[in-house]
Amino acid sequence: MKKLVVTVIGLGVIGGSYAMALTAAGHTVYGTDTDPRSVREAKDRGMIADGSGEAAAFAAKSDVVVIALYPAQVKAQLAALIPHLKDGAVVTDVAGIKSDYVAEIEAMLPKGVQFVFAHPMAGREKRGIDYADSRVFKGANFILVPTERTSEQALETMRGLAEDMGFGNIMSVSAQKHDEIIAFVSQLPHAIAVALVNSDEESAETEKFIGDSYRDLTRIASINETLWSELFLGNRENLLRSISDFEAQLDRIKTVLERSDKAALEDIFRSSSARRQRYVKK
Amino acid sequence: MKKLVVTVIGLGVIGGSYAMALTAAGHTVYGTDTDPRSVREAKDRGMIADGSGEAAAFAAKSDVVVIALYPAQVKAQLAALIPHLKDGAVVTDVAGIKSDYVAEIEAMLPKGVQFVFAHPMAGREKRGIDYADSRVFKGANFILVPTERTSEQALETMRGLAEDMGFGNIMSVSAQKHDEIIAFVSQLPHAIAVALVNSDEESAETEKFIGDSYRDLTRIASINETLWSELFLGNRENLLRSISDFEAQLDRIKTVLERSDKAALEDIFRSSSARRQRYVKK
Repeated sequence: MKKLVVTVIGLGVIGGSYAMALTAAGHTVYGTDTDPRSVREAKDRGMIADGSGEAAAFAAKSDVVVIALYPAQVKAQLAALIPHLKDGAVVTDVAGIKSDYVAEIEAMLPKGVQFVFAHPMAGREKRGIDYADSRVFKGANFILVPTERTSEQALETMRGLAEDMGFGNIMSVSAQKHDEIIAFVSQLPHAIAVALVNSDEESAETEKFIGDSYRDLTRIASINETLWSELFLGNRENLLRSISDFEAQLDRIKTVLERSDKAALEDIFRSSSARRQRYVKK
Repeated sequence: MKKLVVTVIGLGVIGGSYAMALTAAGHTVYGTDTDPRSVREAKDRGMIADGSGEAAAFAAKSDVVVIALYPAQVKAQLAALIPHLKDGAVVTDVAGIKSDYVAEIEAMLPKGVQFVFAHPMAGREKRGIDYADSRVFKGANFILVPTERTSEQALETMRGLAEDMGFGNIMSVSAQKHDEIIAFVSQLPHAIAVALVNSDEESAETEKFIGDSYRDLTRIASINETLWSELFLGNRENLLRSISDFEAQLDRIKTVLERSDKAALEDIFRSSSARRQRYVKK
């Protein structure tokens, strides 16, 4: 695709990785952050051509502006930017929940500005630019959430950038569908990992007995509490439904255990094996 | 340590990996399996010096006999072996549950035979010798379950073999403690992974949205149903208690979600992050 000028606002794990990947793909990337240390590191690591604590001037000369902030901050940031955006500019976000703000954001937009809602499905359990690494995008899923207002051209621009960043699977869904699916594939696993770690009696011995199973299931229990409390609360109804569906399945296991029903337990295991192998081919 | 003669009975993922690791460490390893194909493959891959479908003759000339079978098969296999074992022989198992059979096995043992109960905490979600790979032992936990009958010398022999196989952390606990901890660090994660995979509505779209979280949390949902139904049922009470403790934590998350209590949710996340970082240093 054509080389663009892109400003990334918020140089955390995701924003930093966007900057890194887009610079590597040949785009001109500016980066801004309220923390001067993050801007300096982004420059030192060659992730951005230039940057500062102030987004307006960079955004004014950009084809695309990426708001890589927590969901609750996107509206305020957009409001501050709007007077400066050039005609035809595309703004995008990286938020893991959509339904609650799509309509409000679209109501704010002037005629010449497109907002393409996007969710890069890749991250790290750590926060901050030190952990930014564009390799996490390689082959990952990239979700676009177009609305009736989204132009085909703006959507194409974001599709192109996602490809440039290395995403393997780029798809479009409605905001409602996005939030329903994300509750299951992302937020439920986080809720489970957190509950698993917290359910330990904390005997001094647990640590010595940990194997791959516990390690894998709890990696994401080390969690950015500011971001994830927003994501959970912003998708409350869907997440509560997913937790209930999950608990129903766990209760099935409890019931067959209480009955010592080996055949039924084997059936449950056969079903999970078949689904897992169908969903994840590796 | 001194080079020993070892017979591995059952050339599946774990038995095959034992054979591979012990041969690599310079011991003389024989392998037996009821499936002639597994014996042939173990020979072809250089995992064993010799082998067959019959354990007795090899066991008769071995210092150590590893019964790498499912827990329910250990007693019958031991009974068949006892007349053939040489004086001073050490027998060991690889079973993931202990309490239910330790006493019964010890009651069977003649004076000159030691049984050292062991649990190598490493495995694969696949079964069969094709997936045997001694690298999974590297740095993993190896649990010894000595009893009053276990001699220090036999325990030392098994400790030495575990070191030779590459295990990183070798420790001893009672059978009761073993089963309590294993319910939490191993069986509960498996129950959760299975319930998570089974709780999906199976829309055609889930697959496209899967990210690292779902992948990590469900790897072990692809599960050997014969083995794991034995392990679950053999440790029923401990596992039911672990599931209940876990559900209590999940209910806490539900409660704060229902109340939209962001501060409480952040506290829960901070607690899981701190514990995870304390338990798993990587």
